[in-house]
Amino acid sequence: MEARTLTDQPDTPPEVDHQRAVFPEGLSLDCGALLAPVEIAYRTYGKLSEAGDNAILICHALTGDQYVAETHPVTGRPGWWERMVGPGRPIDTDRFFVICSNVLGGCMGSTGPRSPNLSRPAFDAREDGDAVHEPWGTEFPPITIRDMVRAQHTLVQRLGIKRLFAVIGGSMGGMQTLEWAATYPEMVFAAIPIATAPFHSAQNIAFNEVSRQAIFADPDWRGGRYWESGSIPARGLAVARMMAHITYLSEEALTRKFGRRIRRQSASAETSGDLEHPLSFFGEIFEVESYLRHQGSSFVLRFDANSYLTITRAMDWMDIGAEHDGDYAAPFVGTRTRFCVVSFTSDWLFPTSQSRVLVRALNRAAANVSFVEIDSDKGHDAFLLDEPDFDRTIRGFITGAAEHAGLHIGPKL
Amino acid sequence: MEARTLTDQPDTPPEVDHQRAVFPEGLSLDCGALLAPVEIAYRTYGKLSEAGDNAILICHALTGDQYVAETHPVTGRPGWWERMVGPGRPIDTDRFFVICSNVLGGCMGSTGPRSPNLSRPAFDAREDGDAVHEPWGTEFPPITIRDMVRAQHTLVQRLGIKRLFAVIGGSMGGMQTLEWAATYPEMVFAAIPIATAPFHSAQNIAFNEVSRQAIFADPDWRGGRYWESGSIPARGLAVARMMAHITYLSEEALTRKFGRRIRRQSASAETSGDLEHPLSFFGEIFEVESYLRHQGSSFVLRFDANSYLTITRAMDWMDIGAEHDGDYAAPFVGTRTRFCVVSFTSDWLFPTSQSRVLVRALNRAAANVSFVEIDSDKGHDAFLLDEPDFDRTIRGFITGAAEHAGLHIGPKL
Repeated sequence: MEARTLTDQPDTPPEVDHQRAVFPEGLSLDCGALLAPVEIAYRTYGKLSEAGDNAILICHALTGDQYVAETHPVTGRPGWWERMVGPGRPIDTDRFFVICSNVLGGCMGSTGPRSPNLSRPAFDAREDGDAVHEPWGTEFPPITIRDMVRAQHTLVQRLGIKRLFAVIGGSMGGMQTLEWAATYPEMVFAAIPIATAPFHSAQNIAFNEVSRQAIFADPDWRGGRYWESGSIPARGLAVARMMAHITYLSEEALTRKFGRRIRRQSASAETSGDLEHPLSFFGEIFEVESYLRHQGSSFVLRFDANSYLTITRAMDWMDIGAEHDGDYAAPFVGTRTRFCVVSFTSDWLFPTSQSRVLVRALNRAAANVSFVEIDSDKGHDAFLLDEPDFDRTIRGFITGAAEHAGLHIGPKL
Repeated sequence: MEARTLTDQPDTPPEVDHQRAVFPEGLSLDCGALLAPVEIAYRTYGKLSEAGDNAILICHALTGDQYVAETHPVTGRPGWWERMVGPGRPIDTDRFFVICSNVLGGCMGSTGPRSPNLSRPAFDAREDGDAVHEPWGTEFPPITIRDMVRAQHTLVQRLGIKRLFAVIGGSMGGMQTLEWAATYPEMVFAAIPIATAPFHSAQNIAFNEVSRQAIFADPDWRGGRYWESGSIPARGLAVARMMAHITYLSEEALTRKFGRRIRRQSASAETSGDLEHPLSFFGEIFEVESYLRHQGSSFVLRFDANSYLTITRAMDWMDIGAEHDGDYAAPFVGTRTRFCVVSFTSDWLFPTSQSRVLVRALNRAAANVSFVEIDSDKGHDAFLLDEPDFDRTIRGFITGAAEHAGLHIGPKL
């Protein structure tokens, strides 16, 4: 049997000219460092009303980005939340001005480990006279979910918005939603944290740590300085993604989608571009293996390994009660934000029990809070997938909140 | 930040002189190949009765071995089931003759990928005249759980035992227990499959596949021919183990043991021998990270990567209904074996739902079956840990079965 790994020679991610806002003064981070300059790449959909009161900020998850409702410039695939965002969709771009920005630390145009480290002297000058700086790499300062939110806050201000009608996001996007409500309560009329938690659990830290160790273990990572070799730690990053992908689904979903079905190795390799499996048994592998390897090898084409390290670490540090002796209610005392907390029955990465901790805390803080547990067998990823009950929940809550906010931005409301 | 991986220079596993039975005629495998010769390393505890009717075969799990109830020759740690097996223990070695063998494909003395491949010509001769053969490596034939059981069967016959009083095992050991009852029903008076399933689920195949890809991704794996370089794919194997270890625990157990507690990097490195974490945040990492990395780096000292590949693949192929159009009852129709199926409430790797499939099938087959779901928050590993209810269950079932079997092997019975 010939042994090959799944991603021997991936392309490096392509360059894309993202829409950006530049903040030369930078941002003070939770770690105490001043990160400057800061650039935030973002996309908007719909129009801001004259009153400036119809803005919805969407916060993306770990490996998401700002391309919410349009074709992705790297993958060519539909936006990650086109089902939810667009004309007539639950987040209706005929009515709302929708903003989504790539998180600080990301790799889709916002400042992150791949950005030039201007805090170090330039090591070279190009022919056009511009200085050339090394990327930050692992010297990128450690950031928190709140730092991501601070960066979004500067962007929202730059866009001339004084108050967001709503902040919404799933998974890590839900963590940002909570930090928004805790850090800028007067700026958030409604908050919709989905499939998330007020703290990152030991199990989730553990999964993140395995992802990181898979990247560290790849010699092509080169201590984070992989730009020097022109290669990327594709194998480690693919393994990280494969493992994470299992946690995004449920046992039921995997059984329903793949079960124990097998496929012939050769046909698989021809049709999907996957490489051979060193342990194929008479040329047969399981379909779930083929699927996972495809997830791993396609991911490395669009994501930066050092960003993955930085962002997973930010998730690990998420603990909204940390500055309040573990009291998750304290950050929300006195809030006037209307909350809609959503979880999914088969989500075992951010299980409903963690949403309940949040809901109890919000109730203790006397917040206005709805809680909806959606019956789904799709696991954590349910918030990205076709779940009509979920769509109706979001549409209903947003419509109701818009009435409470007194929004009158068109005949449809 | 200096970047280091967790296992840069591990020692290779030490040589141990295991107790072995040799079968020069070899074994016909499910894949059609004849594997010859076959050696099975094993340990026994207690004494076989004159009637030869008090033998209990213990089947070990993926990374277990035959050192059940004595100090492990490599790690120096207690046997993996000393809590359960010994004088006066639930599996009482004062009463029973206990056998445990290293599985076929393993790396603790039984024939596996590290054994010499005699099917190829010797490539060298030592001074003493013995031929030198390469190890099997990835050319080791694909094996199944039933192949493991066939090897155990030859060993049991060699030991002069005509019928086993009981076969017992957890996880992959439970799979072997089921294959024993299905393949040699007249030889198994009682069967105790614990924390297991009659088939390997899509999710578990997926986790195994990520483990394997982590090993394949390690350049030191060298297509399975790592013996040529004198190094081992320690980084990939450690990542595989770290991930698997999360699946052996439960979210509750991880929260109880570690929560979000942090430890200073330097103190951690000094006391545990762990290496620095490239992403420590002001020198702090989470305790769960330190624990996992220790699990990963200690595992590679005692386990062979190619064995890990071979055995995980055998688990993936486990499907006791495969030859009966998916009917899990068919293999057990007419059985006279007494079954005690045990699951644990917080086991999400082999959840109770999978044990229920087995129990329903056994009932359809009119088998004599008890089913016990133990209330535990320790996850899959509960069968290895201190769970008094579980111990009482095993003791009670064995005592009762011994009465039914008419065993009279001492005053204690």
